[in-house]
Amino acid sequence: MADHIEKAQYSEAMRHSTAHILAAAVQKLYPDAQFGVGPVIENGFYYDIKLGKTLSSDDLIAIESEMAEIVSAGEKFVRVEWPIDEAIDYFREHDQPFKVELLGDLKTRGTTSLKDLGDQNLVSDNVEEVTTVTIYRTGNFIDLCRGPHLENTAQAGAFKLTKLAGAYWRGKEGNPQMQRVYGVAFATKEELDRYLVMIEEAEKRDHRKLGKELDLFVFSDLVGSGLPMYTPRGTILRNQLDAYVQEMRDEYDYEEVSVPHITKKDAYIASGHWQKFSEELFKVNTREGHEFAMKPMNCPHHAQIYASRPRSYRDLPIRYRETTTCYRDEQSGELSGLNRTRAFAQDDAHVFCRSEQVQDEVAKIWGIITKFYGTLGFDDLTVRFSRHDAANMAAYSGGESAWDAAESQLQAIIQEKVGDNYVDGVGEAAFYGPKIDFMGRDALGRESQVATIQLDFNQPAGFGLEFIDEQGQKQQPVMIHAAIMGSIERFLSVYIEHVAGAFPTWLAPEQVRILPVSDKFAEYGAKVTAELKAAGVRAKLDDDNESLGKRIRGAEAMKVPYTLVVGEREQESGGVAVRKHGEGDKGSRSSAEFLKDITREISTRAA
Amino acid sequence: MADHIEKAQYSEAMRHSTAHILAAAVQKLYPDAQFGVGPVIENGFYYDIKLGKTLSSDDLIAIESEMAEIVSAGEKFVRVEWPIDEAIDYFREHDQPFKVELLGDLKTRGTTSLKDLGDQNLVSDNVEEVTTVTIYRTGNFIDLCRGPHLENTAQAGAFKLTKLAGAYWRGKEGNPQMQRVYGVAFATKEELDRYLVMIEEAEKRDHRKLGKELDLFVFSDLVGSGLPMYTPRGTILRNQLDAYVQEMRDEYDYEEVSVPHITKKDAYIASGHWQKFSEELFKVNTREGHEFAMKPMNCPHHAQIYASRPRSYRDLPIRYRETTTCYRDEQSGELSGLNRTRAFAQDDAHVFCRSEQVQDEVAKIWGIITKFYGTLGFDDLTVRFSRHDAANMAAYSGGESAWDAAESQLQAIIQEKVGDNYVDGVGEAAFYGPKIDFMGRDALGRESQVATIQLDFNQPAGFGLEFIDEQGQKQQPVMIHAAIMGSIERFLSVYIEHVAGAFPTWLAPEQVRILPVSDKFAEYGAKVTAELKAAGVRAKLDDDNESLGKRIRGAEAMKVPYTLVVGEREQESGGVAVRKHGEGDKGSRSSAEFLKDITREISTRAA
Repeated sequence: MADHIEKAQYSEAMRHSTAHILAAAVQKLYPDAQFGVGPVIENGFYYDIKLGKTLSSDDLIAIESEMAEIVSAGEKFVRVEWPIDEAIDYFREHDQPFKVELLGDLKTRGTTSLKDLGDQNLVSDNVEEVTTVTIYRTGNFIDLCRGPHLENTAQAGAFKLTKLAGAYWRGKEGNPQMQRVYGVAFATKEELDRYLVMIEEAEKRDHRKLGKELDLFVFSDLVGSGLPMYTPRGTILRNQLDAYVQEMRDEYDYEEVSVPHITKKDAYIASGHWQKFSEELFKVNTREGHEFAMKPMNCPHHAQIYASRPRSYRDLPIRYRETTTCYRDEQSGELSGLNRTRAFAQDDAHVFCRSEQVQDEVAKIWGIITKFYGTLGFDDLTVRFSRHDAANMAAYSGGESAWDAAESQLQAIIQEKVGDNYVDGVGEAAFYGPKIDFMGRDALGRESQVATIQLDFNQPAGFGLEFIDEQGQKQQPVMIHAAIMGSIERFLSVYIEHVAGAFPTWLAPEQVRILPVSDKFAEYGAKVTAELKAAGVRAKLDDDNESLGKRIRGAEAMKVPYTLVVGEREQESGGVAVRKHGEGDKGSRSSAEFLKDITREISTRAA
Repeated sequence: MADHIEKAQYSEAMRHSTAHILAAAVQKLYPDAQFGVGPVIENGFYYDIKLGKTLSSDDLIAIESEMAEIVSAGEKFVRVEWPIDEAIDYFREHDQPFKVELLGDLKTRGTTSLKDLGDQNLVSDNVEEVTTVTIYRTGNFIDLCRGPHLENTAQAGAFKLTKLAGAYWRGKEGNPQMQRVYGVAFATKEELDRYLVMIEEAEKRDHRKLGKELDLFVFSDLVGSGLPMYTPRGTILRNQLDAYVQEMRDEYDYEEVSVPHITKKDAYIASGHWQKFSEELFKVNTREGHEFAMKPMNCPHHAQIYASRPRSYRDLPIRYRETTTCYRDEQSGELSGLNRTRAFAQDDAHVFCRSEQVQDEVAKIWGIITKFYGTLGFDDLTVRFSRHDAANMAAYSGGESAWDAAESQLQAIIQEKVGDNYVDGVGEAAFYGPKIDFMGRDALGRESQVATIQLDFNQPAGFGLEFIDEQGQKQQPVMIHAAIMGSIERFLSVYIEHVAGAFPTWLAPEQVRILPVSDKFAEYGAKVTAELKAAGVRAKLDDDNESLGKRIRGAEAMKVPYTLVVGEREQESGGVAVRKHGEGDKGSRSSAEFLKDITREISTRAA
C-alpha cells in the first residue's frame, strides 16, 4: 500500500464489499430481510434493512460471526450485467420491493436520485437510456451495484459493526422505517483497533459532555437551542483566550470598537449579505413596520465607523477589533453543541488599508495566528488558499479581474510564508473575496478550520469607503477580515476536545485548589488561598466536611491543574504539598516558591 | 421667599400671569390675534396664537417691549365669574373661536380634556354641571382662567421670550396651525440670567454635539436610528468606566457570565416581560416558524445559569455580572442621542441570595454606587424608594404581603444609610419588585436617575429557582438586580454633559498629545511618546506639518488633558513643557517626572 491513491481505492472497494458481506450475512440469518441501500461512509459503511424483528446489539455480534464465516469461505464477488427488466423480475420474485423501486426509478427516470444513496452507483451505463444494470453476486447474495469490489471475501480487512439506528426509506418521513446497521472497516486489525480507541477517546472528550461536567456552558429549553450561555468558569476560559488575541493585536495598534447586534436591512443590501445569505439572517420586524436583521457578520458596521469621518492616507492602516456575538438562523437539525450554534462570538477584526499595505498587514495577522495556535498546541497548521471559481462567477460579488488581482496578492504572501506547501481551494472563497484558511489537527488527528484571513475589495466599494491620497484624490481602501479564533464557539468545541478539558494553567477556570487535611488547618489553607488570590491566581479553598481523598478526587474531576494539600507539616514550615492534574504528587514546596512557579507558568502561557 | 412652597406658588402664579401679559401684548400689537391656550411649563410658559403673519425673532423683541410697558403700567389682574353662556357670547363677538370651542366643550362635556392644556384650569366649579367660568382681565385683555394670578402686572419677575415653534391646535394634525411663543420667567433678573447662561452652556455640552466633535460615537443611516456605534475613542471611555465598576465588584466576588442576545418567547412569559412589555420587545421570527425576542433585560438568562445546577445554601450568595447589550423597540419619535436608544448596554449584575443576606448585599452595592458616582463628581445622590402602589396591584407580579415584606427589607437599609432623607416613590416600583433609585445632580443642576438596586422575589418564583438549606429542604432565593451605570448609553449622555466632554485623565480616550515644535524634534517627541505608551498611558505624537499653534488648538479642541511641547530645550534636558487642558501652561518637567505624575493621577482616578 505504498501509494496513497491505491490505498484509498482499496479502502473504498473493501468497505463497499464489507457492506455486501453484511447484507449476505443478514440474509442468511433472516431470510425474509428486505434490503434498501448500503453505501460507503467515512471509515466504514452502513446498510438499511427491513426486518420483522428489531435488532439488538447481541444480534450484531451474531451477524459479525456470520460475516466472519463468509470471509473465511473466500467467496468470489461475481460481476454480471443483466437486462434491467430481468433484474426487476428477479428482485420482485425474491420479495425485495426496495430494489424493485430503485430499478423502476432507474428505468423510468434514468436515476435513483436518492440523497442518502451515498457512493453507491446503480447506473451501469448512460443515464438517459438504462437498459442494463450491473449485479454483484457473493454466494447466494445478489445485489445491484456498479462496483468495484474485492475479488473475493477473503480480501476483506478488519471490520466491526458499531451501531444501530432507525432510518426512513429514502430519508422521507412516512416511508417504511428501516434498521440501519453501521460498521467500520480498515485494511488491518491494527488500524481498526487504533480507530476504535480513537472513537472511545473522542466520546470521552466530547465537548458537550465536558462542557457540562466542567461547568463551562449551559443550554436552556427556555432560552432556546443553539444559544449557549457561559457560566463563570466558561466565561473565564473565553476571556483568557480572547485577551491573548487582543494582547497580540495591541502590539500592532488595533483599536477596539463596539457596535449593536441589529441593523437595518439596507446595510446588508449594501454589503451583499441580504442577497447571498437571506435565509440565514434572523429577521426583526419593528413595531413601526421597519425590517431589521440580527448581524451575521460585523464588517458592515465596522465599515460604517470607518465611513463616519474623512480619512487620509496618513490615517491608514486603520485597524478595528471587536469581540462580539453574531447570529445566524441555523436549522434545528444542524445544531450541535458549540460546534454549530445560532449565536456565536467572533474575535473579529477589520483592517482598512491601501493595496500596497495588504502584504504587510496580512503578514502580521499570519504571525498572530501562528503564535496563538502554537501556544495552544496546534503546531503545524495546514494552509488553504480559498479562491474563486471562474466557472461560477454568479456566486461572487465583483468582476474577475479584481478577483485575480486580489488573489495574486495573497498568493505572493503564501509563497513567501510556506512556498508551495498549501492546499489550493478553488471555489472556497467568501462571496466578497479570497481567503487564506488555516486548518489545525487536534490530538486525535482530526482536522478543522481554525482561522482565516480574508481580502475584500467588494464591501469597500458597496459602502463607498474612501480615503484621500497624497495628491488629494479619493481612493478606495481594501478591507482585510481577520478573525483569529473565528467563531469562539466553534474554536472552543475543537479546543476543549483537543485538550480533553484539561486546560493549561493560564486558561484553567480554577488554577489551584487548596485542601486542608482537616479543620485544624483550614485557617492556614485560607491564608495560602488569600496569598494566591492577591497575586491574581484563581485559587479556591475546599474545606468542605468531606474526606481528603474525596476532595482530591473532586479536584481531579474538575481538572484543576494544581491541588495543594496542607496539614501540620505544611503549616509549620509555611509550605504546600503539590499535586498536579494528570501527574500526581509533585512533592512539597514553600508557598512562596509555589507562587513564584505558578505565576511564571501563567505569565508565559506554558502548555 | 423664605418658604420653598411659597416660592413655588409665586413662580407658578407669576409665570401664568406673564403668559397673560404676553397675550395682552400680542393683542395690542396684532388686534386680529386669536388665542389658544397659554400654560405654565418648566421655568416659564408658552402661548399658542393664530395670526395672519408669521412671527420672527425681531417680532419677539417688539412683543417683549410691549410686555415691559404693561408691567410698568401695573395693571390689575381682575377676577370675575361669568355665566358660561355670557362668556361664550363675549368670545364669539370678539372673534376668538378657540376660546369658544373650549367653552363649548366645558359646557357640553364638563371638561376641555386637552392634553397640552398643561396647568391651565378652565373649570370654575363642579365639572359635571358647568354654569359659570372664571375670567381674568388685565387692561383690555380678557382670558378664561381659574388663576391664581399676581395682584398686578408690576409684580411680574424677569422674563424673556425664548423661541417660536409651530403647533397644531389641540396637538392634532389637521387642526389649524398655531404659532407657539415660548418664554421663561423668574422672580429676579439674577435668576433669569443664571438660567440663560445655563441653557447656553447646556447647548454647548449637548452630548450629541460633543459625541461627534470628540469622535466618541456615531449613528449611520444604513445601520439605523437609535443604534449607536462606538469609535475607538468612545470604546475606551466605555471600557474604562466599565472596568472601574467591575474592579469594585470583583472585591465582592462577583463572577462574570455571558449570554446570547435572543431568547425564546417562553423565557419572557416565565419572567413576565412578555405580558408587561410586549410592545417594546423586538420580535424575531425564525425560518422554522419559532418566535424569539431580543433581550430587553438580562435577568431571565442569568436565572437560567443559576438554575443549571443544584445549589446549596453554602454556595450563596451567587453574584453574576455581565456588561451586555439589551434591546427595546422604541418609537422613532422618542429616540434622542444616547439618552434614548434602541440598543443599550447595561453593566448588569444579579445577586442570588437568601432573604437574610439581602441587607448585607444591598449595602455592598450601595457602597459601590456611592464610590463610583463620587469619583465621577456626582457627590450627593438623592435616594428614591420606589415602592408599589397598593391601589394598582394589577401593574405588578406577586401578592401584596410579599411586596410589603420586600419593601420593609429595603426600608431598613435606607433608614440605616440615610435616615428619612429620601424621596418616597409610591407606584415607582418595577413590576417584579421594589427599588432603591439614586438620582444625581449634574454640573448644570439637572437631576437624572443614575443607578438602581432592585429586589425581586417574583422572577425566582417564575423560574422555579431553588437552593437546598441546612435541613436539606428546598428554598427559594431572592434576586437582587444591581446595575451601577444602568444603561451605559443613558449614563454617558448625562456624564458627557456633566463634564462637557473634558474627561478626567483616567477616562480620556487620548491622555497626552506630544507636539514637537519642529521636524528636528520629532524623534525626541517619538521617544517621549513611546515611553508613555510603554507605561500604559494613551499618548499620541502629533508631528503633522502644521504650525505649533494650530496643533495646540487641535489638542485643545479634542480636550486632551495634557499637551507636551518638545523643542531644543526639552530635548537637551530630557524634559517636556506641559500644558493642561482648560488651565494652560504648567511649566517644564523632566519626562520621567511627568510620567510619574500622570501615572499616579490615572491610577487614583483623580477628578
